[in-house]
Amino acid sequence: MLERLRTVLIGTSHPGNIGGVARAMHNMGLADLALVAPRGETITQDSISRASGADHLLHSARHSQTLDEAVADCTFVVGASARSRTLSWPMLSPRELARRLPEECRHDNARVALVFGREESGLTNDELHRCHAHVHIPTNADFSSLNLAAAVQVVAYECRVAWLEQQAIPADAAGASDKNEEVNLASHADLERYFTHLEHTLTAIEFHDPDKPRQLMARLRRLYLRAHPEQLELNILRGILTATDKATQPPRS
Amino acid sequence: MLERLRTVLIGTSHPGNIGGVARAMHNMGLADLALVAPRGETITQDSISRASGADHLLHSARHSQTLDEAVADCTFVVGASARSRTLSWPMLSPRELARRLPEECRHDNARVALVFGREESGLTNDELHRCHAHVHIPTNADFSSLNLAAAVQVVAYECRVAWLEQQAIPADAAGASDKNEEVNLASHADLERYFTHLEHTLTAIEFHDPDKPRQLMARLRRLYLRAHPEQLELNILRGILTATDKATQPPRS
Repeated sequence: MLERLRTVLIGTSHPGNIGGVARAMHNMGLADLALVAPRGETITQDSISRASGADHLLHSARHSQTLDEAVADCTFVVGASARSRTLSWPMLSPRELARRLPEECRHDNARVALVFGREESGLTNDELHRCHAHVHIPTNADFSSLNLAAAVQVVAYECRVAWLEQQAIPADAAGASDKNEEVNLASHADLERYFTHLEHTLTAIEFHDPDKPRQLMARLRRLYLRAHPEQLELNILRGILTATDKATQPPRS
Repeated sequence: MLERLRTVLIGTSHPGNIGGVARAMHNMGLADLALVAPRGETITQDSISRASGADHLLHSARHSQTLDEAVADCTFVVGASARSRTLSWPMLSPRELARRLPEECRHDNARVALVFGREESGLTNDELHRCHAHVHIPTNADFSSLNLAAAVQVVAYECRVAWLEQQAIPADAAGASDKNEEVNLASHADLERYFTHLEHTLTAIEFHDPDKPRQLMARLRRLYLRAHPEQLELNILRGILTATDKATQPPRS
């Protein structure tokens, strides 16, 4: 499981912090480090000194200019976030994240990215929106900015503990719960209306043939139901169908 | 509870580490720092820099020449230990320690010391034998020496989580896991390609205006990432977009 975890650092300013991250990773048994657009050199006296014997992680680190490149093959991408943003995203505590990892790592092609932002400003909204979930380390509200290596230390530590627990109790693969704040979930009836509309539109654009349904609608149902849409999201999805209908209808003469 | 925890550092060599410890403590809501026989100055440019705004903990730190003085008023003393020594002692994981704290802190005069040793050599046997229990942070057997501030970070983090749990005690937050059969999850790169295609199609059918994006794409990202699509499902979603594109393009004449 630990070998499937990639630590991704974006726009790191201080080489010493990269060294500190390498040490924290190696201490916890993580080895896959990706550096995205670091500012300046990454292998310096300072980074090697802080790595304190884990500098092979610095030498083997992946380098890229964008987050997309760094996590292209990842199946679960989690971004460290200081607080909930305007648009809330599935938010996990480090422990919830760690407890979800055995399940996430079960798949053959599983690869999990733990993404950490810039020392001063963290991850951008654009970067956060590329993540399946966010992880927030609980901190003193008056002093919430963790050192980068300290943040990686905490998350990597939780991953290691979860891994050790998995070793000990291999049977139990319980995942973490999604705790959302107050949202208006779409009702069954709203969802059914949506699925009816969806089937109608997919037939009109000749993507779907009701006489040869195969499992298309079932697969789409499973996907959307798994996402457990809110009313607002369902309104957007229905709006897309209505716009599609309008764009494909022959103009009236 | 957190105000009853004292962090005790013995024989620290590097002022920067003391600053890093101060930052980690303040991040986690701990304030009581005791320095036993530090080697050299403790308030230096380096320690203030690493404290990163938590340097009031350096200024208010207790100073003493011996561990006994530093923990004289403590009712529970726990020493960080790299491994079990010749003479085995009650050994706790950081989590077990943290979960024991609410009980330990229940008494009126409760005061808990978390004792950390020298960067190079840790605590002496004599010092360890002055502790009620030892705490061992699980590490990679091949690379077990944590940075001092990182060790304090992990233990302080566990203390904070235990404190937060004590505050809340919100029944059980664990949900049932989704157990799927063997699936291939979509990769980050596949998802990004889908989002690009989606935005293009939504613009073409005039549902989306890139000049007035509001939060449309962010909301759709959140919805689809929450569903954590499989490759097959993503293929269906892309197929729908392609069919939509085809149906809305003016027929070639």
